[in-house]
Amino acid sequence: MTQDRVFNFSAGPSVLPEEVLLKASNEMLSYGNSGMSVMEMSHRSKDFLSIIESAESHMRSLMKIPDNYKVLFLQGGASLQFSMIPMNLFIKHKKADFIDTGAWSTKAIKEAKIYGEANVLATSKEQVYSYIPKLDSSSFSNDVDYFHITVNNTIYGTRYTPENIPNTGSIPLVADMSSNILSEAYDINKFSLIYAGAQKNIGPAGLTVVIIKDDLIGKAMDSTPTILDYKTHVDNDSLYNTPPCYSIYICKLVLEWILGQGGVKGIEQINKYKSNLLYSYLDESNLFKGTVVKEDRSLMNIPFITGNDELDALFIKEATSKGFVNLKGHRSVGGMRASIYNAMPVDGVQKLIALMKEFEVNHK
Amino acid sequence: MTQDRVFNFSAGPSVLPEEVLLKASNEMLSYGNSGMSVMEMSHRSKDFLSIIESAESHMRSLMKIPDNYKVLFLQGGASLQFSMIPMNLFIKHKKADFIDTGAWSTKAIKEAKIYGEANVLATSKEQVYSYIPKLDSSSFSNDVDYFHITVNNTIYGTRYTPENIPNTGSIPLVADMSSNILSEAYDINKFSLIYAGAQKNIGPAGLTVVIIKDDLIGKAMDSTPTILDYKTHVDNDSLYNTPPCYSIYICKLVLEWILGQGGVKGIEQINKYKSNLLYSYLDESNLFKGTVVKEDRSLMNIPFITGNDELDALFIKEATSKGFVNLKGHRSVGGMRASIYNAMPVDGVQKLIALMKEFEVNHK
Repeated sequence: MTQDRVFNFSAGPSVLPEEVLLKASNEMLSYGNSGMSVMEMSHRSKDFLSIIESAESHMRSLMKIPDNYKVLFLQGGASLQFSMIPMNLFIKHKKADFIDTGAWSTKAIKEAKIYGEANVLATSKEQVYSYIPKLDSSSFSNDVDYFHITVNNTIYGTRYTPENIPNTGSIPLVADMSSNILSEAYDINKFSLIYAGAQKNIGPAGLTVVIIKDDLIGKAMDSTPTILDYKTHVDNDSLYNTPPCYSIYICKLVLEWILGQGGVKGIEQINKYKSNLLYSYLDESNLFKGTVVKEDRSLMNIPFITGNDELDALFIKEATSKGFVNLKGHRSVGGMRASIYNAMPVDGVQKLIALMKEFEVNHK
Repeated sequence: MTQDRVFNFSAGPSVLPEEVLLKASNEMLSYGNSGMSVMEMSHRSKDFLSIIESAESHMRSLMKIPDNYKVLFLQGGASLQFSMIPMNLFIKHKKADFIDTGAWSTKAIKEAKIYGEANVLATSKEQVYSYIPKLDSSSFSNDVDYFHITVNNTIYGTRYTPENIPNTGSIPLVADMSSNILSEAYDINKFSLIYAGAQKNIGPAGLTVVIIKDDLIGKAMDSTPTILDYKTHVDNDSLYNTPPCYSIYICKLVLEWILGQGGVKGIEQINKYKSNLLYSYLDESNLFKGTVVKEDRSLMNIPFITGNDELDALFIKEATSKGFVNLKGHRSVGGMRASIYNAMPVDGVQKLIALMKEFEVNHK
């Protein structure tokens, strides 16, 4: 780590691999032999087409995306997907099933209601979203256009493990994977649509990746604006309008970095190692405690508390002064949260734990 | 100019000031004392809030934006504005007047029709959009929610001069200024809504700036998604969802560069000087000809032809080999187009003209 860099535990936008930033910095004035920055390139130039094609092909190989899925590079974040999804998928019943696992599910539900019906099959709200509700698939509706889950819940630190992804049979499963895409292997065939804001594991904010199964494309409601119809972007290879080119370039660099880590399987091992280090310490600590039931713990976002607001504040202050930043928990959970995305080095987690241990010794 | 940089006449994304790229490159691994890249910062962090506030305040001072206008930093480009505008502004009549001055006007008209009526008051289509139709304001409708123009037409090289902006009285004037915002002084008070994709004069693709008068806010149609309601972004200071943070940072740097050029008035002088150099040569050349009527010529996009497709192709090839790139005209006009946005140095235009003169001598 470069001398003056901090350990950045931000929930998003969040830490990027230092190698990626170095490469971007070096290529800022001239990419390859182009004589210009990627920011200055026509999105229809050969150089940029090669960038976006590489980004797509890396994404496909890393996530083992079958040929009957399209990969789109869009704008607007998960928040725009909350609307694009019903606009495009409310084909027959204008109705969807949701599991409410937090703030982002809640927003997805609210927006779907503008265009149809949103059934909330289960929620963990009453327990501050500290677990993922498990349902028998017999409770799923048969007369809905899709079934929606939020795979990883950034604020509350829960996740659907790859084994716990609901089996929705012939109902398309739609998943917000913004905060844990590319962090561990999920079977894409279980999903019909996966979307993710880039600003956690993919690249800079302002880019949204959508992975969508062929059979959902081209059925948007008549009132759908051209730019919010997935078919528009499928037909134009994400170049209907000017895409967020520079963010796509950074995405390509991040994906190449993941390939260098052994792909998703490699990064999954590292992520499990990192998160186990922190969870193991939380389980044995007499001061710090995790807030999530063990089986639903996120590999990416780890909230923890001391149970004493003053101590929490003191810990955050001391950590910040030592270069461990953005550890304050979301106001709805309180305490601390360590977001340890793909790009957080093992070293950062080890040093954070050392700091926590020292703090524990000094405050028992 | 750094040795290996080219002169980039791309219509967009397009050339950025080299000083901006250098600064961005230097700050890539750590912005100020933050210890992190701007790409890695929480959009709610102090450092980022200071960036977005500076960007807004520079935009306000450069464009002399009165207090009763909001400045928003959004995503989705002009293409998403084509839909957001009717969704938010079809308040009473669900009808708007348009002047069709090219491909972008046409798209704006098409999208407005999804939500209501779009009257095309005039078009220059029959003359390949080589001029701006001038209308007497008595021909404007009284029963429309807004009146829409495209101020600068990237493909065809025409523009509404500041003097020719239609006086629409009490009907809100809405203007797409994507390709000439900040290039010369327009009186903001003549407009109710100005929008611009960033990728020409503001920064990287993926950022859209919207300047909107207070009285148009908060009246969106019921079916409008939360994220497409201007009020959402006004109420949240453009931080309802994660904005395209890095693009906003580059925008701030570009605006600071414009301030250093003497503001919009300063850059206007330079732009007039640059475009006059090229237009004067086109007017006197026996080989190269401009395609636009004099009074409507763009300061930013200058299409020209030899009248001979083979010579055009040869010129483009020779220019490219000498580091003058992206001079190929849009397929609908043919020939060449030199896009000389704010960041194109005078030197680039002078050297292009020298090259054209040399080519003319060799091919008369």
